[in-house]
Amino acid sequence: MQQVPETKFQTIPPRILLGPGPMMVPPRVLQAMVNPMIGYLDPDFISIMEEVSDLLKIVYSTKSATTMALSGTGSAGMEAGLNSILEPNDVVVMCIHGFFCERQFEMATRVGANVIPLRSDWGKPFPPDLLEKEIKKHKNVKLVTTVQAETSTGILQPLEDLSKIAKNHDALFMVDAVTSLGANPVEFDSVGIDYAYSATQKGLACPPGLSPAAISNNALNAIKNRQTKPSSWYLDLGLISDYWGDAHTYHHTAPVTMILALRESLKIIVEEGLQNRFDRHNLNASALRAGLEALGLTVVSQNGYRLSQITPFTIPKNIDCVEGRKILLREFGIEIGRGLGEFAEKVWRVGLMGESSKPEYVLNLLAALEKLLPRYGNEIEPGSALSAASRILSDN
Amino acid sequence: MQQVPETKFQTIPPRILLGPGPMMVPPRVLQAMVNPMIGYLDPDFISIMEEVSDLLKIVYSTKSATTMALSGTGSAGMEAGLNSILEPNDVVVMCIHGFFCERQFEMATRVGANVIPLRSDWGKPFPPDLLEKEIKKHKNVKLVTTVQAETSTGILQPLEDLSKIAKNHDALFMVDAVTSLGANPVEFDSVGIDYAYSATQKGLACPPGLSPAAISNNALNAIKNRQTKPSSWYLDLGLISDYWGDAHTYHHTAPVTMILALRESLKIIVEEGLQNRFDRHNLNASALRAGLEALGLTVVSQNGYRLSQITPFTIPKNIDCVEGRKILLREFGIEIGRGLGEFAEKVWRVGLMGESSKPEYVLNLLAALEKLLPRYGNEIEPGSALSAASRILSDN
Repeated sequence: MQQVPETKFQTIPPRILLGPGPMMVPPRVLQAMVNPMIGYLDPDFISIMEEVSDLLKIVYSTKSATTMALSGTGSAGMEAGLNSILEPNDVVVMCIHGFFCERQFEMATRVGANVIPLRSDWGKPFPPDLLEKEIKKHKNVKLVTTVQAETSTGILQPLEDLSKIAKNHDALFMVDAVTSLGANPVEFDSVGIDYAYSATQKGLACPPGLSPAAISNNALNAIKNRQTKPSSWYLDLGLISDYWGDAHTYHHTAPVTMILALRESLKIIVEEGLQNRFDRHNLNASALRAGLEALGLTVVSQNGYRLSQITPFTIPKNIDCVEGRKILLREFGIEIGRGLGEFAEKVWRVGLMGESSKPEYVLNLLAALEKLLPRYGNEIEPGSALSAASRILSDN
Repeated sequence: MQQVPETKFQTIPPRILLGPGPMMVPPRVLQAMVNPMIGYLDPDFISIMEEVSDLLKIVYSTKSATTMALSGTGSAGMEAGLNSILEPNDVVVMCIHGFFCERQFEMATRVGANVIPLRSDWGKPFPPDLLEKEIKKHKNVKLVTTVQAETSTGILQPLEDLSKIAKNHDALFMVDAVTSLGANPVEFDSVGIDYAYSATQKGLACPPGLSPAAISNNALNAIKNRQTKPSSWYLDLGLISDYWGDAHTYHHTAPVTMILALRESLKIIVEEGLQNRFDRHNLNASALRAGLEALGLTVVSQNGYRLSQITPFTIPKNIDCVEGRKILLREFGIEIGRGLGEFAEKVWRVGLMGESSKPEYVLNLLAALEKLLPRYGNEIEPGSALSAASRILSDN
């Protein structure tokens, strides 16, 4: 028997994960994956899937939707929705205000839909007027899309007005909840969402690999009444909802282990309480922003619409955007995110989601920045960032 | 803080997994998933991906292919290949000899390809003559497809002749290696495969959730020279190979934890040695077959082409196909598989792959069957199955 020396392989270093995800994972969630394997059609596993569905209904604030965990990452949830709902030449109006909205656009275009892209300024919420003006010009708009928590710009997009406009024109409303679920309210029923998808590695504090999704009966009916089959079989929401629904019809082998991890992370969320969790996210983000501002760094997302889960800010002067992040990683063990799209090379992004949204990580990062900035000639008052953040944390 | 009582939740029972997958998972692989989380663009994680690529080259017996783990189950690997290689109206000739070949057919049809299905008898290998006769009738065949290890029929499909015929007509050759990788040879280079995909939960003895794939330069060039973009963005092999290749260009968040599990399972395979592993699969399958035959049960896959990893056999007389499997699960803790497609309600299937291919599990199952059969009036000689199997196991 050939022995492969362990030293040949890369070890997994401890990191403080404050990028756009994956986030830190609670030990309970990691432990859930060490359970013995079980078959994906085993009646006991089916019970577990039903528990996951029920727990997802809580975080999505829905009673009526079908909830499920798609066997892919957040982008799989995005593609499942667009590919299943849209037929070639269907009209879709896309409210685009960042990088992941553009990904929705790319996917809808590939499906062969008649895509109407509406673009607004990065770092600000998408203005509903823009949708209102455009949607009137088209007959039979099938779908309106947007992203609730734009990871690229740090903006929390208000959804109520967009949803109303879509409903007034008999269009379905699809929302990217990748960065929002478990970190800010996603009011599926009361907002009137028809399809939302998320990812496990952000607000849910789970490893990446699944896309927890919710779909309304209206959207399911639209899928069942298609003239043509979706071009994707793997991400066909009609087939997948039959596996997650009461029939539990075999579609593909479910990623059992990831579903066990997701169940554990959802249990933790329900135990903490949704509102407590949102409050925690808001508090830690406020502390981070105060610290960054004390260092003279500017948060680029518009005040009043800032996400707590991701904070984009201007890169400190004289620091190379790649090199600076490397130092944070190698010297301080902290991962933060780079800018994407229009914000590439202009901003860094700090993610404080799920298990990574903790006071100690905010302070770790600010302490690292207090050491890093002076090396590159950025004058700061030592301790100023830490004390600004601490004041906010201790006031609450 | 709301407490969710643990008793409300389904526990995970210990099972002996002898179905079509998932299989038992070695403790080392489970433990690999408890490592701290790491970012998917972290340079240390990139090193791990490169190790996974290198280990996959060993199990796929390839030096030239690009190897990667797609972020979905085996069916995602199937769809990635068909969706990325085939453009609408491209001619694809499909060698269909079972349920998963039919799934390839369904997916290729959805892509809008010009699909030529060739169907042969279930439970026998696909005859190359059928391909030879048909392929001559078509110009510009872009792709020939088949399944190497048909999980539904238990057949190991010889690939050499099919590959030669495809090459003689300048067609690419795509192979489903879902049930073969890690359990029987998959000679990517010497057979001349252009795209092969697998799954983690079978011969690789890992939890389900990834599709380890290999793609030739010819196939990658065909993808890069497409006139239209693939309808799937998530499963676009051009984009995914850029993330797994030297550029490591961001595509989507990689399922980090599953990739750590896969690395560990591949290390175990290399330590065991591929030939030792294949021999082990063959030995345990021989013992199982001898035991089943001693019970008067018929293995329905054609002798000479039988897979070691999955054995379909006739359901014992007077036993309901659903009820009998339920008793095996509930009373004996053993999962076996049902029949699919043409074999539904006619056969049961026993999977002995990876960690599940062990003498003790063969004996566990035969002992259970020796208890079960007489209850339904099947006369057997007590101990006959166990001794038939033991003789084979101890001879080796």
